[in-house]
Amino acid sequence: MNHFTHLGDLSRDDIADLMKIAHLADTDRTWQPLAGRILGLVFMNPSLRTLASFQAGMARLGGSSFVITPGSSWALETREGVVMDGATAEHVREAIPVLASYADAIGVRAFAAGQDLAEDLAEPVMSLVRDISPVPLINMESAMDHPCQALADWKTLDDEGVPAAGGKFVLSWAKHPKALPLAVPAAAVHMAAHRGMDVTVLRPPGFELPEPVMARARAAADASGGSVIETDDREAAMTDAHVIYAKSWGSSMHYGDGEADAALRAGLDDWTVDEPWFKPARPDCIFMHCLPIRRNVVAADAVLDGPRSRVLGQARNRMLAQQAILHRLLA
Amino acid sequence: MNHFTHLGDLSRDDIADLMKIAHLADTDRTWQPLAGRILGLVFMNPSLRTLASFQAGMARLGGSSFVITPGSSWALETREGVVMDGATAEHVREAIPVLASYADAIGVRAFAAGQDLAEDLAEPVMSLVRDISPVPLINMESAMDHPCQALADWKTLDDEGVPAAGGKFVLSWAKHPKALPLAVPAAAVHMAAHRGMDVTVLRPPGFELPEPVMARARAAADASGGSVIETDDREAAMTDAHVIYAKSWGSSMHYGDGEADAALRAGLDDWTVDEPWFKPARPDCIFMHCLPIRRNVVAADAVLDGPRSRVLGQARNRMLAQQAILHRLLA
Amino acid sequence: MNHFTHLGDLSRDDIADLMKIAHLADTDRTWQPLAGRILGLVFMNPSLRTLASFQAGMARLGGSSFVITPGSSWALETREGVVMDGATAEHVREAIPVLASYADAIGVRAFAAGQDLAEDLAEPVMSLVRDISPVPLINMESAMDHPCQALADWKTLDDEGVPAAGGKFVLSWAKHPKALPLAVPAAAVHMAAHRGMDVTVLRPPGFELPEPVMARARAAADASGGSVIETDDREAAMTDAHVIYAKSWGSSMHYGDGEADAALRAGLDDWTVDEPWFKPARPDCIFMHCLPIRRNVVAADAVLDGPRSRVLGQARNRMLAQQAILHRLLA
Repeated sequence: MNHFTHLGDLSRDDIADLMKIAHLADTDRTWQPLAGRILGLVFMNPSLRTLASFQAGMARLGGSSFVITPGSSWALETREGVVMDGATAEHVREAIPVLASYADAIGVRAFAAGQDLAEDLAEPVMSLVRDISPVPLINMESAMDHPCQALADWKTLDDEGVPAAGGKFVLSWAKHPKALPLAVPAAAVHMAAHRGMDVTVLRPPGFELPEPVMARARAAADASGGSVIETDDREAAMTDAHVIYAKSWGSSMHYGDGEADAALRAGLDDWTVDEPWFKPARPDCIFMHCLPIRRNVVAADAVLDGPRSRVLGQARNRMLAQQAILHRLLA
Repeated sequence: MNHFTHLGDLSRDDIADLMKIAHLADTDRTWQPLAGRILGLVFMNPSLRTLASFQAGMARLGGSSFVITPGSSWALETREGVVMDGATAEHVREAIPVLASYADAIGVRAFAAGQDLAEDLAEPVMSLVRDISPVPLINMESAMDHPCQALADWKTLDDEGVPAAGGKFVLSWAKHPKALPLAVPAAAVHMAAHRGMDVTVLRPPGFELPEPVMARARAAADASGGSVIETDDREAAMTDAHVIYAKSWGSSMHYGDGEADAALRAGLDDWTVDEPWFKPARPDCIFMHCLPIRRNVVAADAVLDGPRSRVLGQARNRMLAQQAILHRLLA
Repeated sequence: MNHFTHLGDLSRDDIADLMKIAHLADTDRTWQPLAGRILGLVFMNPSLRTLASFQAGMARLGGSSFVITPGSSWALETREGVVMDGATAEHVREAIPVLASYADAIGVRAFAAGQDLAEDLAEPVMSLVRDISPVPLINMESAMDHPCQALADWKTLDDEGVPAAGGKFVLSWAKHPKALPLAVPAAAVHMAAHRGMDVTVLRPPGFELPEPVMARARAAADASGGSVIETDDREAAMTDAHVIYAKSWGSSMHYGDGEADAALRAGLDDWTVDEPWFKPARPDCIFMHCLPIRRNVVAADAVLDGPRSRVLGQARNRMLAQQAILHRLLA
């Protein structure tokens, strides 16, 4: 493994091996296999968990890291061939190889541009960064993917004993004041399918996931013995569910059109995940979310503060999963 | 000690022990009792000294740290039960346990909301953070307290040989263009009282400290043999003073009302601390301030650049006092 | 050497010694001569390379660092004697000694104020910082100097085998939408002259470098056997050149007057460095730039992506040159 940009690049056996490393990192604080190694973290968008979990995880393994944030530097250009007489002062074609030349591996976060769905589905920024990075690259969330979150979520499902074969995983759209990127839902639906689960995408009409995202998830399910369906029938979706994974996202129909998206979501007031949703589910159905989460909008306090919530465990697993990746790339 | 959120939680013997640790940290650069430990620093407000002194102090003890700043992340919600459809993207109920789960201890800075005095006196944010943090918590300045500053100031008074019993400590209001929080004056008056000093709060009419702040300081003085009084008579306050501790703060009468506060302070042009203030004081009276300080507004260049000023020593003691706290919480 | 604020403070023998240290830092990753040492990095302006290369370089040598950025703190006052009732909340007279008291060395970045050329040429901020820093100071770019860049560029010229005696170095003005500071061109012309090269400053009329900058470069050339001339004749300048070092800067004639500067540069559309520029040069003429660079404005993609470009090597040498400086100051 030279880079970690998509969970699908790892077989289920690879992932099982990484889980062992994650467990070792969690239980043996004296283990420092990355002493003297340097990780560069480049955020073109804000971060809380990702920044902290990478810095802490790298330090626990004996290494060091540096961080570039939007607030400490200038805007980076990502388009090819452009005449840079506008707001951006440096191109990633310089910034990435330069920062990589100080480090043994780099992590890069670059959210979707959010104007053209086909363009964002092609992952232009992360693909370019991957092409030009002279050191191993970790995708810290790109236009349509968030493999660190996916690997952490896989670990959480393992930790909870949720079955792979026969486990029912519901990815549900949720209420939110803004049209959010598709990276996490795209990563989550693929992750659960790759794990061999029976996946239902639950969303109101107009919020279908893009067909290439669904196709990739279905292909992963076919290979692992799982399944992927999509519905707006909440009762059917939640029936016998082991897991509901909540996340809001923008409408692909109105991609880049904030007003049309807002009109479409205006009436969707009952898409705040709350206790009654769980009635048809298995009694021990757990609640997952990648965070940050808007309380009493995406999910009710009762769910987040109740016994179903695994959101804190998911977040802690970010550090452990990333430590496993760092070990794989650098040790 | 599980947390360090208020100086009054430490007895004077505890503090004396911490001073020995601070001295050790200052004099033995090979001492690294926190090797492999991680400190998370969460700033909901800007910082210079606190960020640098915690990161440097932790590194000197062999440990590592990570920093979340307002500029690298998003606004955190602190109110309970709120429907988060506004500017805040994540609640401290998630952010704090998550960040704490990557660390062995966390520091949190959360200034006063500055709208409702009674609410800020109740320390709603720091109390909540304390309740939900799974690891030791350090208060890096809250609505009404700044215990790291207080402990550093205690050390500075010790370093200077200022007597506890019989030492006269003047906390003086000073000119400033804005209504500042009460955290430092509340911490300073309590610190000096807890140390057993004779404390005078000198301030113009309308800038009385809130009664609960004064009551807590008086209780500390009663227990330690000191005293606390309040006056607007500068000559009387400064007579025989060992120390003047300058600090500006907003009027409690007009809490949250910037215009009324500005009107009240408009005429107070002679509240810039300057050499003539020291005439009735002891000849060796020292000048203290927590920094940042506005030169020639809060105090004149002549004072800050003259032999009375101890502001740089106070700031350096931030690192040493915090190293003692980190050692106590983590070693 | 107590500080590193100007390359001219180092003899060519000193520089040769530093190059050996830089090579050692590059080739022996187990060499950690600065274990336990702390570097404070204070940025009054944004940074990408400088922040990352100092943090990575210090970590590779075994040490630690902390960073203050404009985004995490408040605006610092640099003028002397001012009544601070405006936008700045802390004076460097406090901030610098305080931050230095947590560290074994500090780096400071403070760009030109950009209003008064004579004042900026006097380097008021870096001089003040140098006077008040109790620990070794590294200039991370000041009003008129960037010695870390200059030392890295010297190493790049050595790496490339560009001759010192007889090597022809062209510093060329380039197109840019804004009037940029003079720090890098002033440092580059002096560096090449100090190295003993034949230096040509190529720029359109109105963009002459300030006479004190040229005089200092000529003095360095006189001492080292090099030469410095200035011209607007591109063909003559580029003839037999070993190196073209591109950089944009503002007009000294209209210093602080953005409109007049913009009018002067309005017609200069053919100052984007492109392949045809190299026709009269040596076939192996290399292209240098300090970065960040605006593609297809300062230089064409064809140059930056072609075989002449050494911009990535220059940037990597920032880390190695700075490691040598840190070793000299701290080991």
